[in-house]
Parts: sequence; C-alpha cells; structure tokens
Amino acid sequence: MSKLRVHNFVVSLDGYATGEGQSTEAAFGHAQREFLDWFGKIRIWRGLQPDGKLGPDEAIAAAWGTGIGAEIMGRNKFRPTTGPWPDDGWRGWWGEEPPFHTPCFVMTHWEREPLIVGATTFHFVSGTPPEVLERARDAAGDLDVRLGGGPTTVNEFLAADLVDYLHVVLVPLVLGRGVRLWDGLDALHERFTVEAVSVPSGATHLFFTR
Amino acid sequence: MSKLRVHNFVVSLDGYATGEGQSTEAAFGHAQREFLDWFGKIRIWRGLQPDGKLGPDEAIAAAWGTGIGAEIMGRNKFRPTTGPWPDDGWRGWWGEEPPFHTPCFVMTHWEREPLIVGATTFHFVSGTPPEVLERARDAAGDLDVRLGGGPTTVNEFLAADLVDYLHVVLVPLVLGRGVRLWDGLDALHERFTVEAVSVPSGATHLFFTR
Repeated sequence: MSKLRVHNFVVSLDGYATGEGQSTEAAFGHAQREFLDWFGKIRIWRGLQPDGKLGPDEAIAAAWGTGIGAEIMGRNKFRPTTGPWPDDGWRGWWGEEPPFHTPCFVMTHWEREPLIVGATTFHFVSGTPPEVLERARDAAGDLDVRLGGGPTTVNEFLAADLVDYLHVVLVPLVLGRGVRLWDGLDALHERFTVEAVSVPSGATHLFFTR
Repeated sequence: MSKLRVHNFVVSLDGYATGEGQSTEAAFGHAQREFLDWFGKIRIWRGLQPDGKLGPDEAIAAAWGTGIGAEIMGRNKFRPTTGPWPDDGWRGWWGEEPPFHTPCFVMTHWEREPLIVGATTFHFVSGTPPEVLERARDAAGDLDVRLGGGPTTVNEFLAADLVDYLHVVLVPLVLGRGVRLWDGLDALHERFTVEAVSVPSGATHLFFTR
C-alpha cells in the first residue's frame, strides 16, 4: 500500500513548527522571519526546484517530490482564518504555479468547489484523517501521499498512527510560542527507527522510518 | 573571568531533560529506563572516566571535566524530595566516590553542614543564582564552574543569562511529560552561536557558545 510521508518539516528546539498569530502576510506568524531565514539556510526551495546544485540540504529536500501522487494539508497551510471561506479571491501562498503538481486535499469543515491553480488542483474536503487519507490514496494511484502540514495536521495523523515516514528539520531556535508538533505523542519514538544527521547549515535532519 | 558551563545535558525532542515522578530509585522518574539507555548509547560514563576508547561520544563527553574547579547543582540532582532534609543517611546517587572531585554547591532553601564523600565536598547553600555562582567561582579559583543540572536549575541560570556554554545531547525520544529545559527561554538562540553534530549513536550534540 502507498505510504503517507512528511517531508522537510521544520521544527524548533522547543518543538514549535510555526509561530503564533498567522496572517496572510505571515504564514508562520511571529516566527515568520526566522522560519524564512532557515528555509534559506537549509536551501529548501532549491531542493524542491532543483537547479543542479544538490548539496546535502537540497538533496535531502528533493525527496519531497519523489513518488508522490497527492498531498493532504490542513486548512491553515492553505490560508489563515477558520470558519466559512472569506470571498477575497485567495488562491494560496504559492502564486500562479504552486509546486505541488498533484491533487491536494485541504482539510476543512467547510467544503467548497475545487480550485485549479497552475498544474495543481485543491480539493476542500471534510472528514476524519483516515477518510481523507483514503480519498488521497485513491487520487495518488500507485504513488505515495504526502502530508504537507501544518503542525496541527501532522500531529493529528501521527496520533492516529497513519504516518509511515516523518522527516523533521530541527533548527536551533527557541521560539517560546506557536504550535507544537510533539504534544500528546508520548513514546512516538517507539513506533519508528530514528536516524539523525547534522549538516553544515546548522540544522539536523531527523528521519523517522518504519 | 571563569566561565559557567553546562555539559552532557540530555534533552528529548519535546524538550524534557527528566521525566515525571523522581524517586530515590529513579533519578529521571518515568523516563529512567530511556535516559539510562541513552547514557549507554552515547557512552557518557566512558567519557567521564576515560578508558582509552575515545570515540566521538566519549571525546565530547570528556570535556565535562576539563578545567572545572567547582560544580553547582539543583537540590534534585542531589536527591529527590523538597523541604527539610530527611534524616535517612542519603549521600547522593554516586556511591562512595562521586565523579566530581571538586567542591559542589547544592542549591537549597534548607542549608546544612557540608558533606564529604570521597574526594568531593557537597556544600548546601541558599541564595540567588548570581550569589551561588559567586561562591562557586571563589571556590573554583582560576578554573571554570560547571552547572550540573537538573533542568529547573539550568533553565533558571539561562533565564538569568549567566551561562557561557551549553552542550545539549539531543536524543530522539518523545517523552510527553517531565521537566522541560526550554520553557520561558524565547530567543535563547540569539544569545549564542549554535553548532550541531550528529553521531552514529543517533544522538545530536548541540553546542551553544559565545
């Protein structure tokens, strides 16, 4: 069966995967500047859109797209705000050519018509994690499904033991507030083999496999 | 001036440096087994008492004793329980030859006569972190002072910006409960240069220097 994979998921030393106070100007809230700085240092965008310079960070980041047929994301990865969708023409953070190029399932209590942006179709679906995963697997065919975040969504799928692969990029920040990845996941390490590798940028890649 | 240094401080992915429910049988509470397992994997004891096999873990661990003239520790590193000292003959966790071999200043609201065990003298002192640090520096002469833990004590000295060197051994555990190192230390990374190195045991050494 196809796997559910999390890639390039940046987490601080105190366990935060995003800051507090998300807005349309700052996907990562109060930690926006520091997250973007670290995305630059670990060259995560270069890995997603390879330009031939595949150092350790880019090479690891590039695994993000390999063998993926669909993505699941939480509502707040697509846009800030909860509740009914504002009628403001928001089409995601990614401009007119989002990097996904597969069906993306946005989890929401407020279903709506799909949105096509470039080569990516966003489906807005309600349902439990196993239900949404089943829809994404149907769309992915023989390929794997990526779980794209944010932290609340990844936490929820880990709690339900639906994640097969988790790649965390641990960055040396102490953020103090935001949304934590690890809450309620006591003994998570017992369900995986964990390997770590530090890279010259100062980040440490943690690979949870099974 | 002599530095205040933290060495070999083991912290989980979710930021816990000890478990919940410390007792005389389990210095690390509910996480006792996992912490002792990791002390074995990172061969921390071999670093403290070198036997000639200095792999990366032992070599890093051995910095613990270099140039140290005194240690400061929290009450719960010396023994469980708070309040007046029980009259039960407790002499620490370390048997008749504790590894310190320097004066150790145990922070407590309940001062008592010093205790000599092997080549180590434990002084039981009250006072604020700066006051206790001054006493330890006097005892250390030209050498550095080690801050030995536990997490509450290290957190308190970091919050007061008294720590010059922090070496954290990040281990791939998600403990869920216990005592966290990082709470209230927002933006700690801005006060230090942070370097990371992973080792084959699966741990990652983080070095906060300045």
